[in-house]
Amino acid sequence: MSFTQDTLDVLLADIKPLDQSFMEQAQVRLDNLTKPPGSLGTLETVAQKICGILQTLTPDVSRKIILTFAADHGVTEEGVSSVPQEVTRQMVFNFLRGGAGVNVLARHVGAEVRVVDVGVASDVQGDGLICRKVRAGTANFAKGQAMAVQEALAAIGVGVEAARQAIEDGAKILGTGEMGIGNTTPSAAIFAVLLGLSPESITGRGTGIDDAALEHKIAIIKQGLKLNSTYCHTPLGTLAAVGGLEIAAICGMILEAARSRIPVVVDGFISSAGALVALKLCEKTADFCFFSHMSAEQGHRLFFEKIGHSPLLDLGMRLGEGTGAALAMSIIEGGVKVINEMATFDEAGVNAG
Amino acid sequence: MSFTQDTLDVLLADIKPLDQSFMEQAQVRLDNLTKPPGSLGTLETVAQKICGILQTLTPDVSRKIILTFAADHGVTEEGVSSVPQEVTRQMVFNFLRGGAGVNVLARHVGAEVRVVDVGVASDVQGDGLICRKVRAGTANFAKGQAMAVQEALAAIGVGVEAARQAIEDGAKILGTGEMGIGNTTPSAAIFAVLLGLSPESITGRGTGIDDAALEHKIAIIKQGLKLNSTYCHTPLGTLAAVGGLEIAAICGMILEAARSRIPVVVDGFISSAGALVALKLCEKTADFCFFSHMSAEQGHRLFFEKIGHSPLLDLGMRLGEGTGAALAMSIIEGGVKVINEMATFDEAGVNAG
Repeated sequence: MSFTQDTLDVLLADIKPLDQSFMEQAQVRLDNLTKPPGSLGTLETVAQKICGILQTLTPDVSRKIILTFAADHGVTEEGVSSVPQEVTRQMVFNFLRGGAGVNVLARHVGAEVRVVDVGVASDVQGDGLICRKVRAGTANFAKGQAMAVQEALAAIGVGVEAARQAIEDGAKILGTGEMGIGNTTPSAAIFAVLLGLSPESITGRGTGIDDAALEHKIAIIKQGLKLNSTYCHTPLGTLAAVGGLEIAAICGMILEAARSRIPVVVDGFISSAGALVALKLCEKTADFCFFSHMSAEQGHRLFFEKIGHSPLLDLGMRLGEGTGAALAMSIIEGGVKVINEMATFDEAGVNAG
Repeated sequence: MSFTQDTLDVLLADIKPLDQSFMEQAQVRLDNLTKPPGSLGTLETVAQKICGILQTLTPDVSRKIILTFAADHGVTEEGVSSVPQEVTRQMVFNFLRGGAGVNVLARHVGAEVRVVDVGVASDVQGDGLICRKVRAGTANFAKGQAMAVQEALAAIGVGVEAARQAIEDGAKILGTGEMGIGNTTPSAAIFAVLLGLSPESITGRGTGIDDAALEHKIAIIKQGLKLNSTYCHTPLGTLAAVGGLEIAAICGMILEAARSRIPVVVDGFISSAGALVALKLCEKTADFCFFSHMSAEQGHRLFFEKIGHSPLLDLGMRLGEGTGAALAMSIIEGGVKVINEMATFDEAGVNAG
């Protein structure tokens, strides 16, 4: 089934707000637990939001699935990354064998990792890989559009489908993840356009480029945005103009989670670019998102300031893959267990103070 | 066996620094894992420190024990807390039945909680409670010394013994915890003396007192510190002068962890007061401490600024009990699994970039 503008419009119209009634009941329950009101801080606000998403006072997020989308970027030919493009494919195999950071941290928190090829440049096949290649990497957005709008829609559709499958398989919470050498470059370009920021302010060092390379990366982003300016008047147009395919898939995955009323944990800098496109398409999507961590990538702090949300963790991480989403899922599950398992003042025979 | 100044001196002399050789080897290993160097941020620095503590490159912190020390405070008769003293005892039973916040979060991360009565005012017994009452609550430090130096030493000894037992039982990482209505008051007093801060800057609202009560709490602390000024020239003298028994036990537990080369996760505001006494007795103790979270209690930020350490989490929590230690243990275990389980560039066939 092809994913079109019409399919997207139907999806967006299906996204409903948090259930205020369950939110209010959750607050009453939280205030009855054996602790000073609000003293578990973010764990309590997280638990309340989960109740508003799942429409229950006994939420369950034990089945956790992280979707890690892999794709390549034509803009790497401009030398924006210190790492060769081939590493995207190599890392896909590392994911499939369970040796990458996201595998380790997902196992630690009891989450499953699913790896989706939405646009790796070279041919890649392996046990467990979900092959949904829309095209073999984007084109170089410094020289033209990264992809056609239809391709961006198709990549969004890949994310929608992968999320739907995960939810059908029982996932009660999803986490975003990605792998794509060079993908901090399109992410920074998306932030610049959709948040109205200068490329200088939002562009960082990715895997670790030096000062000269950073200056070059900023110049390439400026060049690409100037060249593509006529396409950058809408969120979808911007996504197609600068890429990437995995960012589009993350956008789709988040939208589907929101429609299905399943909480989704947004990983780091690149995942936030996907989330931003989703939020620009439908603001209510934010009600279903939990932002996992403050990336060490420069500009992520600015993203949070602009959208008015705060991440759960700040551990100086900048690996992506879904590593931050994995850790944050465990914090969220902790909050969910608080509302499910803590004794009330009455049950425990404790004075409410 | 009674715990004396001599016992303490022997303990302090036994605390050795981090093993630099294992730290360096850990760094090499971390830089060989399939990720940009340093891109897992604090997870990497945590893993490295654990290797330096445990003197191994394959650390294991799977067996986790939280020690929650309960005690009462004579200063509550001044109305420094909005919660009646009886709640300390009631919460001990809540801990023993598994219904408190620390129980829920410890179960979540796979940690055991041990509850130690080191000075609850009323008689308390229950299945699983470790009864080591030094005295039935401290005296009101606004009217004199909270306890004798010998009693403070005895309470430190309770913490030492409980930590030693946990380590003998196989604990590879410890977490501190406490319960004691009114205990933000002696904690603030300890911070004021040992960090050279004004009571105004370091005193917060505890379980949730209003402006007038906060002003009163500060006045009581000032009165107590003035009255006890002759005892407050040493860390141990200060601890005895203002209390409390659970803070002394936490101090002892941390010192024993450092001597035994076992990492110890410091919970929140009150646990930090215990840690501060330990650090003032022996600076090297900090090498074995992980600070779990930034408490929402005013003054905790100032504590971290003064000692030059950063907490792992900042989730607006202010419950104590060991709740923050539990969550942070899981983050630390994540870092440990990174160094144990992630593939190297060679193993994964990934270009090191």
